Amino acid sequence: MNFSSDNWAGISPRILAAITTANAGYAPAYGADSWTETARQAFVEAFGHDLAMATVPTGTAANSLAIAVGCGATGLLICHEEAHMVSAEAESRKALNPDLEIVTIKGVGGKLAPADLERTLSRLDRAGRPALFSITNVTEAGLVYRPAEIAALAKVAKKHGFKVHVDGARFGNAVAATGASPADLSWRSGVDLVSFGATKSGALAAEAVIAFDTALASTLLETRKALGYTFSKGRFIGCQLAAYLADGHWLDLARHANAAAARLARGMKSRGVDLAWPCEANEVLAILDGEAVKSLRAAGARCHDWSLLGNQRPERPLRRGEGIVRFVASFATADAEVDAVLSALDVALPARAPAHAM
Amino acid sequence: MNFSSDNWAGISPRILAAITTANAGYAPAYGADSWTETARQAFVEAFGHDLAMATVPTGTAANSLAIAVGCGATGLLICHEEAHMVSAEAESRKALNPDLEIVTIKGVGGKLAPADLERTLSRLDRAGRPALFSITNVTEAGLVYRPAEIAALAKVAKKHGFKVHVDGARFGNAVAATGASPADLSWRSGVDLVSFGATKSGALAAEAVIAFDTALASTLLETRKALGYTFSKGRFIGCQLAAYLADGHWLDLARHANAAAARLARGMKSRGVDLAWPCEANEVLAILDGEAVKSLRAAGARCHDWSLLGNQRPERPLRRGEGIVRFVASFATADAEVDAVLSALDVALPARAPAHAM
Amino acid sequence: MNFSSDNWAGISPRILAAITTANAGYAPAYGADSWTETARQAFVEAFGHDLAMATVPTGTAANSLAIAVGCGATGLLICHEEAHMVSAEAESRKALNPDLEIVTIKGVGGKLAPADLERTLSRLDRAGRPALFSITNVTEAGLVYRPAEIAALAKVAKKHGFKVHVDGARFGNAVAATGASPADLSWRSGVDLVSFGATKSGALAAEAVIAFDTALASTLLETRKALGYTFSKGRFIGCQLAAYLADGHWLDLARHANAAAARLARGMKSRGVDLAWPCEANEVLAILDGEAVKSLRAAGARCHDWSLLGNQRPERPLRRGEGIVRFVASFATADAEVDAVLSALDVALPARAPAHAM
Amino acid sequence: MNFSSDNWAGISPRILAAITTANAGYAPAYGADSWTETARQAFVEAFGHDLAMATVPTGTAANSLAIAVGCGATGLLICHEEAHMVSAEAESRKALNPDLEIVTIKGVGGKLAPADLERTLSRLDRAGRPALFSITNVTEAGLVYRPAEIAALAKVAKKHGFKVHVDGARFGNAVAATGASPADLSWRSGVDLVSFGATKSGALAAEAVIAFDTALASTLLETRKALGYTFSKGRFIGCQLAAYLADGHWLDLARHANAAAARLARGMKSRGVDLAWPCEANEVLAILDGEAVKSLRAAGARCHDWSLLGNQRPERPLRRGEGIVRFVASFATADAEVDAVLSALDVALPARAPAHAM
Repeated sequence: MNFSSDNWAGISPRILAAITTANAGYAPAYGADSWTETARQAFVEAFGHDLAMATVPTGTAANSLAIAVGCGATGLLICHEEAHMVSAEAESRKALNPDLEIVTIKGVGGKLAPADLERTLSRLDRAGRPALFSITNVTEAGLVYRPAEIAALAKVAKKHGFKVHVDGARFGNAVAATGASPADLSWRSGVDLVSFGATKSGALAAEAVIAFDTALASTLLETRKALGYTFSKGRFIGCQLAAYLADGHWLDLARHANAAAARLARGMKSRGVDLAWPCEANEVLAILDGEAVKSLRAAGARCHDWSLLGNQRPERPLRRGEGIVRFVASFATADAEVDAVLSALDVALPARAPAHAM
Repeated sequence: MNFSSDNWAGISPRILAAITTANAGYAPAYGADSWTETARQAFVEAFGHDLAMATVPTGTAANSLAIAVGCGATGLLICHEEAHMVSAEAESRKALNPDLEIVTIKGVGGKLAPADLERTLSRLDRAGRPALFSITNVTEAGLVYRPAEIAALAKVAKKHGFKVHVDGARFGNAVAATGASPADLSWRSGVDLVSFGATKSGALAAEAVIAFDTALASTLLETRKALGYTFSKGRFIGCQLAAYLADGHWLDLARHANAAAARLARGMKSRGVDLAWPCEANEVLAILDGEAVKSLRAAGARCHDWSLLGNQRPERPLRRGEGIVRFVASFATADAEVDAVLSALDVALPARAPAHAM
Repeated sequence: MNFSSDNWAGISPRILAAITTANAGYAPAYGADSWTETARQAFVEAFGHDLAMATVPTGTAANSLAIAVGCGATGLLICHEEAHMVSAEAESRKALNPDLEIVTIKGVGGKLAPADLERTLSRLDRAGRPALFSITNVTEAGLVYRPAEIAALAKVAKKHGFKVHVDGARFGNAVAATGASPADLSWRSGVDLVSFGATKSGALAAEAVIAFDTALASTLLETRKALGYTFSKGRFIGCQLAAYLADGHWLDLARHANAAAARLARGMKSRGVDLAWPCEANEVLAILDGEAVKSLRAAGARCHDWSLLGNQRPERPLRRGEGIVRFVASFATADAEVDAVLSALDVALPARAPAHAM
Repeated sequence: MNFSSDNWAGISPRILAAITTANAGYAPAYGADSWTETARQAFVEAFGHDLAMATVPTGTAANSLAIAVGCGATGLLICHEEAHMVSAEAESRKALNPDLEIVTIKGVGGKLAPADLERTLSRLDRAGRPALFSITNVTEAGLVYRPAEIAALAKVAKKHGFKVHVDGARFGNAVAATGASPADLSWRSGVDLVSFGATKSGALAAEAVIAFDTALASTLLETRKALGYTFSKGRFIGCQLAAYLADGHWLDLARHANAAAARLARGMKSRGVDLAWPCEANEVLAILDGEAVKSLRAAGARCHDWSLLGNQRPERPLRRGEGIVRFVASFATADAEVDAVLSALDVALPARAPAHAM
């Protein structure tokens, strides 16, 4: 019954097996190994576009590297006010990009609207600076952007001279949720750079920054080295990504997590629990009474209190005593865990007048 | 016959097994797991001193974090001109510590002498800035500092208000080589901070910054997060370090690597090859004729051409056509690999007049 | 929700890790390796008695070897009529011990009573033949023998010249259930030979025949070879058993399985389900209506229809439509799985008049 | 420098990874799992013929099962006098097939000639008994049968009413050595049953009996169970065989071992060492002086003294003080190990008059 976050889960057996397999003999250090190139080719195939890739060990590293490459040391960064890269990673921005100008925009459920973006950008003076516009897909609140939505935003951003970045810490979940191709969720809709995450989906530690402009290849690798993100034994990230992408494993993992969240969302709604936003991927943001949450936790359920900073406005107003609680499903979530939460909920919820009361 | 570097080797079976074992069930993210605390306690036991620890995924990350904590954004850093943190990691210093003043000192075989340090520090104006003095042990040229040597340098540094740091990417090899305790190679000799490396010695990716002043604990963790070095699934670094330190495994690995290098050094010397500096740990820096190196490589031996920047002055002057070539042994080096290099050397070396020629 | 049998579970992470660790370099074949000796010493320590040990890959192999060593080709074998070695393994007896005389005794829940044993043995003509008396602990119906019970049976058996054997395919569960020491459950109570199983408790495949008379050592190994049970790469059974016994891991695994079964048993009883026999270890033998079982299975629960051959007499007579259904918990059983079965049971059970009806 | 036998090597990383991968969740016991069926289908594809398969844990188990299915309890077994099944496994024949009549034939290097087979069979009175003729490929002395040779022998055997069996403990090495297809080395040449071994080639423990007459499927499984050879957690043999056969991995492993042996054989011959028989697969049977062998072993080389029972007649007569010594290469043999043996040989061999002596 652990729904704290998808990074509380371990390693998918196939990825662990890939590490074991890769541990044979010697291999060139610092990413000059064959597994890393296999991973890059797997990305090329998955995205249907040639690309430059730099593997990194953490999601913050991926975003920091993408920003460094996307808008440099003194550029302009535009994103949602709840974007991980400026909320949870705010200190990283101060430490690693002290001279960057960051402008944030509001939007429901972590999503941005083209009109809001246009309004912001038209008021800004880019003054020729390198500039990056970033969205998060799956958003921090568990919603997904579909290709047409991304294209509409990218069109605005490009008009104003911005590069477009996707923070895809849960990119696989977005692909599985939308049914759209990786291409449609990226370069075909105007995206230049992707922070592609595999860790939350089942890797030990494997993220990559992807640039569809292959001219960025050496910049990516040199900047990664400067930032201290270059794995010494690079094969052990390369092999994880190769195994993650092989045979559609990444989408199997993501579909499993999404399905578990959907099962939980259905179960909650059938018990009268309102969601703050719809469950579109592997997260359920539920509106629950504080007492009910306490009871759930006493029954062994782990979940995360959602901050309401940023005026994210849930779909219905909170009542006194209520809060938003996040449940994240992972590749490892068992149906039985979902059902155990729902059983605990049956006990936790205050008696309600039956829905079919005359 | 792969002596390129110890990071071309894979994962020690015990450490790989620890990863497999740790991959059971859920665990708190970002280092709040029990494996990470077990690792910290293993460090406490190994060093005989309470300490704060931050695990990081790369050696450059360890040094960058140690510098950030040791002398901050605008401090003073003193080290050998060949120190990895200012040579191979020079770009990291520019990117991560742009406002740092760095002063380097010369010294034979990567080692510094107290008198040279005193001369440099007495001429500097620290002006109250936070200041860090760093040595590398095992040095970049494969030599080791013994406790008395560290203490003599630290005494000078402390007199001038400097904290003392050891870049211990091969700390285990230094312990195994000197027979000194981790304590004598660190806090008992005046060391405040250690970049402790396990990757080169047999981990997948596991380094740690150790501070003997536990008041630095939260600074370490917050700075690590800001720099993008915090592993999402922290248990998978924690478990590596715990397994590395358990049951003296780290010293077994280091002794194996050191012994393999010693075997190689002995075999070379008995064939009339001069070493640039003595083989004290797991590296052999040999003076070889260019033709001989070509022949060795044709036979399958992998080794690394040593740069002579920085006037490192080998023990005897190089002759025309000669260079310094580095051979690094690892936990995985088989005796047969060493012997195969030596056999190839028998073929590669120009016929010599027998030493005992009548 | 998989309670088919404990051998449907996989490998405990620690044991899998031990296999990974053991896979370094070369090792002598056929059990002359150090892991196998480490396992034997771990048995010596666990049982507090010197002993001979032969590792084998299957439980049937263990029983066949124990019988071959215990009563030879033309001896006498006495056991419960439901003992695995003469029920599920009946064909093995015919194939491997065609000239053996086998006499079985009845008893409730797979357990034998000293008086019944005495009656049988006093009527038999052993005629100087080698003779073996065998009990199963945990029994096939999930009950456990306690030391005093074993001692009472062994006393009868020894009086008549029989050696005493325990089929301990779930020996760990018996130790965990009784709290008795391995010694009290074996040699201190008169047991000569144990088929010790680790597979059902979390190994890949690892069983051992243990003889407390070390003079049997070479007989064990030679007979094992003749029967085709000698692992080529013996280290890979040895390392499993060593890891299983190290640090009390075997008892942790067994306690987990026993606790999961107890949780299931409690939940069933609180829902008005009668058990055929008490739940003493990691099995629940429940009396359930055929319709309820069908409904449970439709909900995803896996369990095993219990045969009623042998007149095992459950604690209350079955009613029309009822049967006995076995649920086996393993080291891998999650509480959530147990709870999901119980939730399914809430749906499956026919509406009952409330217990507290006025 | 370990050439004791190929079962002193460990597990190939891919096969170990397959075990790790298979260790997810629950799976049916006793071989009713999907990995086992995947393995069977991989055999169907590799052999180009439908077939029944029973996995077993040891090579002796495979032969015992093949004999039980091939000629039953009271049949007739014909094979080479050095065949493993009647030499190393002689006790198994007595224990498991006490009523079998076994007739052996001589032949050089473990191989049989059709004329010798005809002479033996024409003198025997089969008397309607089930009868099995067995060859070993690769033979015990490291030679291989080619398809035409097998077909010639099988023709004789079939004429006399015998089924034909191949003991293929090193079947992969035979395929790699001959370049013939698995089909040509079996059913197309008249073979009915194969003991197919993967353990010596890189599995933890995985052998299979293959019958090209699928009507034998249930007989195979029932006999296997009776003999105590049925793995409880069958997926863990199935997954090994599936990984072994996938993507030609088995042939890669075999080619590596064969190439290492060939390198050793070439090196020996170039040093004037005679081989007892040609090196055709992964074994080198060398004629060496006792003093030279002692010196090799002192240098760390492990090899096996070859018994001369059975008049195997090496290609040249042994001289006083000489013996035959077996070196077996495995998937894990490094070139450096081979070269280290050769270097040791340079020291071990008595000074010889130079071949080009004037």
